Amino acid sequence: MAGYRVAILGATGLVGGEFINLLEERHFPVDSLRLLGSVRSAGKTLPVRGLPVPVEVAGQDSFRDIDLALFSAGSEASRHFAPIAVKSGALVIDNSAAFRMEDDVPLVVPEVNPGDVSGHRGIIANPNCSTIQMVVALWPIHCACAITRIVVATYQSVSGTGAAAVAALTAETRLALDGEAIMPHVYPHQIAFNMLPQIDVFMDNGYTREEWKMRQETRKIMHAPDLAVSATCVRVPVYRAHSEAVQIELAQPMAPDAARKILARAPGVKVLDDPSLALYPLPWSASGSDEVYVGRIRADASHESGLALWVVSDNLRKGAALNAVQIAELVAEKGLLRTGPDGGK
Amino acid sequence: MAGYRVAILGATGLVGGEFINLLEERHFPVDSLRLLGSVRSAGKTLPVRGLPVPVEVAGQDSFRDIDLALFSAGSEASRHFAPIAVKSGALVIDNSAAFRMEDDVPLVVPEVNPGDVSGHRGIIANPNCSTIQMVVALWPIHCACAITRIVVATYQSVSGTGAAAVAALTAETRLALDGEAIMPHVYPHQIAFNMLPQIDVFMDNGYTREEWKMRQETRKIMHAPDLAVSATCVRVPVYRAHSEAVQIELAQPMAPDAARKILARAPGVKVLDDPSLALYPLPWSASGSDEVYVGRIRADASHESGLALWVVSDNLRKGAALNAVQIAELVAEKGLLRTGPDGGK
Repeated sequence: MAGYRVAILGATGLVGGEFINLLEERHFPVDSLRLLGSVRSAGKTLPVRGLPVPVEVAGQDSFRDIDLALFSAGSEASRHFAPIAVKSGALVIDNSAAFRMEDDVPLVVPEVNPGDVSGHRGIIANPNCSTIQMVVALWPIHCACAITRIVVATYQSVSGTGAAAVAALTAETRLALDGEAIMPHVYPHQIAFNMLPQIDVFMDNGYTREEWKMRQETRKIMHAPDLAVSATCVRVPVYRAHSEAVQIELAQPMAPDAARKILARAPGVKVLDDPSLALYPLPWSASGSDEVYVGRIRADASHESGLALWVVSDNLRKGAALNAVQIAELVAEKGLLRTGPDGGK
Repeated sequence: MAGYRVAILGATGLVGGEFINLLEERHFPVDSLRLLGSVRSAGKTLPVRGLPVPVEVAGQDSFRDIDLALFSAGSEASRHFAPIAVKSGALVIDNSAAFRMEDDVPLVVPEVNPGDVSGHRGIIANPNCSTIQMVVALWPIHCACAITRIVVATYQSVSGTGAAAVAALTAETRLALDGEAIMPHVYPHQIAFNMLPQIDVFMDNGYTREEWKMRQETRKIMHAPDLAVSATCVRVPVYRAHSEAVQIELAQPMAPDAARKILARAPGVKVLDDPSLALYPLPWSASGSDEVYVGRIRADASHESGLALWVVSDNLRKGAALNAVQIAELVAEKGLLRTGPDGGK
């Protein structure tokens, strides 16, 4: 079996940790694993298969003899290190927004557009977490009947921001419970027992960049450049897993039962939809699992060919690390990933 | 000045407490105030203008010599006591869903349909909390240009459920922070660090009754029986104030700035909308205040005559007690409220 020399940039982050878990859980053929971080991570070690592995400070030579580089260290780090890694001969799967909308960078969700992995310049982009779970749920419906418009409101967990936001939610929550004043330092406002209708920065058109990503990335992944999409993205005091209230308009009416049947056999999707049992997706329950959960499927009472759905998935797994590892598996399967010297291909 | 003999049914509840606060804050002319509750409240006292007032157990004779009865004790109590109070000659302003959709029961938001207060059979209904704040924000826009469709996703605080839910959020949050197991007892699932896409019971069409209320009540209040409305109602781990991501379709396009101007001079509305300052409505900040806050106003990128807004208001104040007291003021102003024997009319 071929083995790959893998590097993880941003190894000490929340997504980095999931990269390590998923490579092991999914038996990805790893010959060697190099953990990379910024100077702040220097001296740290992380457990890999039970053994402590040191985190190296990423530099010019970090991607020598690397076949696959998984990046999740933010757009700035991606812009700096992706060209270096590509020049070294590695394939970069990048979780940041740095390259997603570039023409020669595939933006891939394996359940939706696996064919797009070819024809890249050494970089494949992993979409935004909110986008991934939405397109996994909508694509099978779109294949049965064209979706013409998407209106989505999100309920996004703090782990999407990173470990500092997770710690801030805990610290702020304790202060609020004790009636103490809170000085927000990760978000512009308190997140404990609050809702923040801002994720990423604002654009001139009044949308945030997160909301615009959901629109532009959905269009690119679904090969639907004119698809009407409008999002409202809200940060909520949940640790892990994003939730989405999605309303779609279709070219033809589709009965909720038909949608339920389509989704029941769709890859990566699990339907949880039985009101009589109070069964519907919940972020607390979805945390740590791989599926995109869909429930609350109903005919949109405000549109003759509309459907409403509630979509929940773990933003660190399918929304980030899992999707990236699935892209790596797909590329490896197609024989498009260079193997290391020990690779027995 | 005329003084009224007022009774509050459900005085020990969260909305009941706000009734007491608001009658005082707004200098509503109260000659006498009778606090009523169930047997569970027997023996309790509540502070009224600094003095302890006993809570009486509501019964057949509780509404004798009462001019105005403010009800917030749930639909069952309303169905039982409203006929008794009306027979005693009191005007009932009912915060429950018991009578809202009945033809001879006005459903009133004073900023929207003040004229509807006349022509009742002794009961005026206070709308659902989520509905009130939405119509206060949308009505001024609708008056300028007809709204043809509303799609709304809510982020509703636990105080909408009552004091037990507020206590459950605190208790569950402490357990979750300590890594302890949680046995939900107010909601079907844990609310701490979670999102529950169910408020009230499910209907056969897949909507919850809360979602359907937002549709039917909006139509009745706005005198728009065919208005297309679809809601997704979600309970969130916030103590107080509901938030709503609202997208509307209009008969004609309206620039966000035009909407902002209309809302800036609308009664009961405060526009908080400056992305450059990270200024937008937040439930934590809206708690305890009277306004309906509107922000994130933008042209809907998915519809040529659509607008998107973010609407936040305190569900116990404008969403419940304040709106009911405003109805009482309106009725009193019109001379339609019977005054007590000491009333100097």
